[in-house]
Amino acid sequence: MTPFRLVPETFPDMPAIAGLSLGTAATGLKYTGRDDLMLMRCAEGSTLAAVFTQSDTAAPPVEWSRERLAEGTAISAILVNAGNANAFTGAAGKQTISESTTALARSLGCAPEAIMVASTGVIGEPLDAAILAAEFDTLVKQDNASWQDAASAIMTTDTFAKGASASCMIGDTPVTIAGIAKGSGMIAPNMATMLGFVATDAALPAPILQILLATATRRSFNAITVDSDTSTNDSVFLVATAVAAHHAPTTVDDPLLDDFVRALDQVMQDLAIQIVRDGEGASKLITIDVAGAPDEDAAHRIAMSIANSPLVKTAIAGEDANWGRIVMAVGKAGAAIDQAQLCIDIGGVAVAANGMRVDDYDETPVTAHMTGQHVEISVRVGTGSGTARVWTCDLTHGYIEINADYRS
Amino acid sequence: MTPFRLVPETFPDMPAIAGLSLGTAATGLKYTGRDDLMLMRCAEGSTLAAVFTQSDTAAPPVEWSRERLAEGTAISAILVNAGNANAFTGAAGKQTISESTTALARSLGCAPEAIMVASTGVIGEPLDAAILAAEFDTLVKQDNASWQDAASAIMTTDTFAKGASASCMIGDTPVTIAGIAKGSGMIAPNMATMLGFVATDAALPAPILQILLATATRRSFNAITVDSDTSTNDSVFLVATAVAAHHAPTTVDDPLLDDFVRALDQVMQDLAIQIVRDGEGASKLITIDVAGAPDEDAAHRIAMSIANSPLVKTAIAGEDANWGRIVMAVGKAGAAIDQAQLCIDIGGVAVAANGMRVDDYDETPVTAHMTGQHVEISVRVGTGSGTARVWTCDLTHGYIEINADYRS
Repeated sequence: MTPFRLVPETFPDMPAIAGLSLGTAATGLKYTGRDDLMLMRCAEGSTLAAVFTQSDTAAPPVEWSRERLAEGTAISAILVNAGNANAFTGAAGKQTISESTTALARSLGCAPEAIMVASTGVIGEPLDAAILAAEFDTLVKQDNASWQDAASAIMTTDTFAKGASASCMIGDTPVTIAGIAKGSGMIAPNMATMLGFVATDAALPAPILQILLATATRRSFNAITVDSDTSTNDSVFLVATAVAAHHAPTTVDDPLLDDFVRALDQVMQDLAIQIVRDGEGASKLITIDVAGAPDEDAAHRIAMSIANSPLVKTAIAGEDANWGRIVMAVGKAGAAIDQAQLCIDIGGVAVAANGMRVDDYDETPVTAHMTGQHVEISVRVGTGSGTARVWTCDLTHGYIEINADYRS
Repeated sequence: MTPFRLVPETFPDMPAIAGLSLGTAATGLKYTGRDDLMLMRCAEGSTLAAVFTQSDTAAPPVEWSRERLAEGTAISAILVNAGNANAFTGAAGKQTISESTTALARSLGCAPEAIMVASTGVIGEPLDAAILAAEFDTLVKQDNASWQDAASAIMTTDTFAKGASASCMIGDTPVTIAGIAKGSGMIAPNMATMLGFVATDAALPAPILQILLATATRRSFNAITVDSDTSTNDSVFLVATAVAAHHAPTTVDDPLLDDFVRALDQVMQDLAIQIVRDGEGASKLITIDVAGAPDEDAAHRIAMSIANSPLVKTAIAGEDANWGRIVMAVGKAGAAIDQAQLCIDIGGVAVAANGMRVDDYDETPVTAHMTGQHVEISVRVGTGSGTARVWTCDLTHGYIEINADYRS
């Protein structure tokens, strides 16, 4: 078996989505020598779903896009800039969006309301619409960028571009799903995530698309954490260009959609896990499975309590099989479990069972597992039916280095 | 003004408490060249109050002490060991406590149930009662240890011994309060804290004492966090030896107790802040004030969200006035505040007001404040009456160093 590599060696081969085009440009706002503006345009008749951060300090671009989504506006394009989050910028931040969507709408020949926006970067600094608008002509003309170009243009502290795709069938019609994401720190999405842009050529009414996205988000972007900090700008968009000529599903539960749901889960989990693999300072990916909880919410809470514990994460960074810290993290989750039923496996090896260390515990295979780049923790907390799987990374000196001096 | 020093230069002068004696001994269980066993004995007629961790994986010593407290058993002594938490040790852990309290009770001439226990150290390793019991004769004979000896004997990763005391009046009778605490990592007490032992010569019925302790805990040990991780062994005990001959208060609200409440707050906040100042890897103490919240709970939740944010803590470690991360932490607290009313001061300087950076913001004085060892953040989130004050420390390379290799 090839050892698991935390950082992918190459960007995946990604298929084009019929009815979708990508463009990128460089504003020079914060970065030099790279693009920082991305435009995703979609064919007339496309539908859109999106989920956003639940933060009380959600940024103006989140508020703009949430309002457009609620209005059910027809979607023409999504504009994304990296380097300035346009967050906590108040009325001036809203004005920036109004001006830039108006300017872009002129170039695209659509209504400003047909443009969704997303921003990522520093919080609290004014964002000048003119700096973005100066690149709109370039952006609109250059409409044949690759997924890799687009994924690269939305990066901030990311160290690699993130993309994933899958094929599936709706009835007997082949359909494609492809998406990109960015994110590396301030990752603990709450009903949303960092920026993610997923597209498909399927033809799905917006209400169905929204439910599919929300469900897949729960199992992907909402099941990851790097540092327990929730961004002001988290947004995931799913565009369906309606180019594929498949039978129309009648409801979200239509068996016609089963393979699409599987493929959407695959793409979104792949992207979510790439964000964790690029977690600031990460040296290891950690998968945490919880079973036997009273319900799914309790299982998720316990899994996230382990995934967010700095003591668990530093122990794993040190390749120390300090499983007592997992006991601690389960205990503080507030899920009212009975510790006499608690069982813990690491790397498939039983470490603790029924409230105590297992008899004749041999740490050797567990320590060997800890030296790899993928650490698997499995916890059983009782006999309930609640399960959850979440992904996180370890907490290393790299995280401190990146974040004690990121803005400067 | 003398600059604030994070680590105290000396242990404070501490008064003896009439009716209380302290002893220490060395078991060699984990540490060499230092004491790791502490016995606090109290006069007949003493009353006891205690608060414990709310963890679902609370350790056997917590369960033992909580049961004894609930029974209202007369208190003779508190036995504390450092280096092994006797946590997640199941039935064997309970047996250890039963054997060691029985052995100690024989030496002290009291019932085993009159002995409270507390343990701190590694989770999940069996604790051998015989190793403790071998030192009981020494411990009982050596009953004139100082507060500093006692505070030193309960340390684990602590870098300095923690003690505090205060005098007050109950009516016209002078009363003394003195206490010690330990803790440095796994600090995010939930209705309790790491280990704290406070004593007074006041004569207070146990029900009143319990309410006084719970109230003071809310404003001290429950208002600190080092790393958001809640221990399995958190316990705070308050012993009243009843030696002082003051008027008996009739209720907990009796004005007779006003000065005692003030002094108890002072001692417990002093100890709590010492724990934060000794936070693993800490280079700065951070005080966070929240005002204008809908209620006290919301204010506390917002303050703790800021205090636990790794991005806020690393920014402060880097002396970077990255206040956008405070906006983020307020937003993720889930306290349903309106960001248009959010105001942030750092070191007394207004940074943001009413949902935006202040006009003509000059970072110079804020950056200067960040270079000190005490950083003060003040947040106003609206016009409600809810306020909270919490203390935390920054997140540095030192935390990673200590915790990526603590157990080994």
